[in-house]
Amino acid sequence: MQTNPMLQQLNFLREIDRLKSVIRQSPLLDQSRKENSAEHSWHLAMYALLLHDHAASTVNIERVIKMLLIHDIVEVDVGDTPIHSGASAQDQAQQECLAAERLFGLLPQAQAADLLALWHEFEAANSEDAKFAKALDRVQPLLINVATDGGTWTENNVSLEMVLQRYGPTIERGSPALWSHCEQMAREYFGRT
Amino acid sequence: MQTNPMLQQLNFLREIDRLKSVIRQSPLLDQSRKENSAEHSWHLAMYALLLHDHAASTVNIERVIKMLLIHDIVEVDVGDTPIHSGASAQDQAQQECLAAERLFGLLPQAQAADLLALWHEFEAANSEDAKFAKALDRVQPLLINVATDGGTWTENNVSLEMVLQRYGPTIERGSPALWSHCEQMAREYFGRT
Repeated sequence: MQTNPMLQQLNFLREIDRLKSVIRQSPLLDQSRKENSAEHSWHLAMYALLLHDHAASTVNIERVIKMLLIHDIVEVDVGDTPIHSGASAQDQAQQECLAAERLFGLLPQAQAADLLALWHEFEAANSEDAKFAKALDRVQPLLINVATDGGTWTENNVSLEMVLQRYGPTIERGSPALWSHCEQMAREYFGRT
Repeated sequence: MQTNPMLQQLNFLREIDRLKSVIRQSPLLDQSRKENSAEHSWHLAMYALLLHDHAASTVNIERVIKMLLIHDIVEVDVGDTPIHSGASAQDQAQQECLAAERLFGLLPQAQAADLLALWHEFEAANSEDAKFAKALDRVQPLLINVATDGGTWTENNVSLEMVLQRYGPTIERGSPALWSHCEQMAREYFGRT
């Protein structure tokens, strides 16, 4: 096992290159292909950087950005679980937890502990920072669907009621202002279909 | 023109979705395809998050992360200019400057000014934060090339001397420790070929 901190860090950075090959359900806005989890993580970090004034409470935007940069890294081991897949939340949580321990465990001990704690905070959504990060992780695919003529909603026969139920509470908890906009966009979209 | 700040921000976030379609020269580590600039930006932000202890001077890691998240956004308008392309640096700088003004100009005024300043700081590399960010932007493709049997070096007939000259000063200025590792990796690679 590697014990030089820099080599451990570079090994981890090689390992997470595979996040670029984890394909999500959501398309790019130009619908040329599906989005991958690495570029999704970049996009969400940009959402946080720009939209923090709309958070429900004051957030530490730098922590939110870090949280979003690492939030999907577990998918290197377990893949993406789409919101409309009906997968067992408990099984998924257990698998992702093991993946987080393996992957962050590649790093020097203090850094591994910090990132694992940050990832658990995101998952548990029991801080204002995590609630806002979770909200953005729902806002982005919702707006993609609105902008791509239904996107994953059309593919999965998702109704307005399901959208309000699956996206609403998470977005509203982290950002009432963003939910107000998203709800309006969703209602307009389903009003047209 | 949109004057509601949230709508301006969401419009910008839609516009930069196109960074996911800007293809760089570097391959993914599994060589399945070329990397795009959005996932590259995520990867670099992760480099900064993990490697800041190796910076030449103390850096504000949150600023470095933000810088790296936005550093390639101009490519939405002007595309990627590969390091080995021999393009005119002056022409490129001028085009990228116009692109930065157009793109960040889509945002609310204060946010546009902040991000434009941060982007110019990165480009000018006249702060410790920017020097470290620039170094990481060279470290990542160098290590990709080493790990992919030469990558863009093979394609462009790049020699060890060219690597030392094109990557060395920028990396060493921002992180002597990372350059020491990168130089060793490059020498070992060219020693094998």
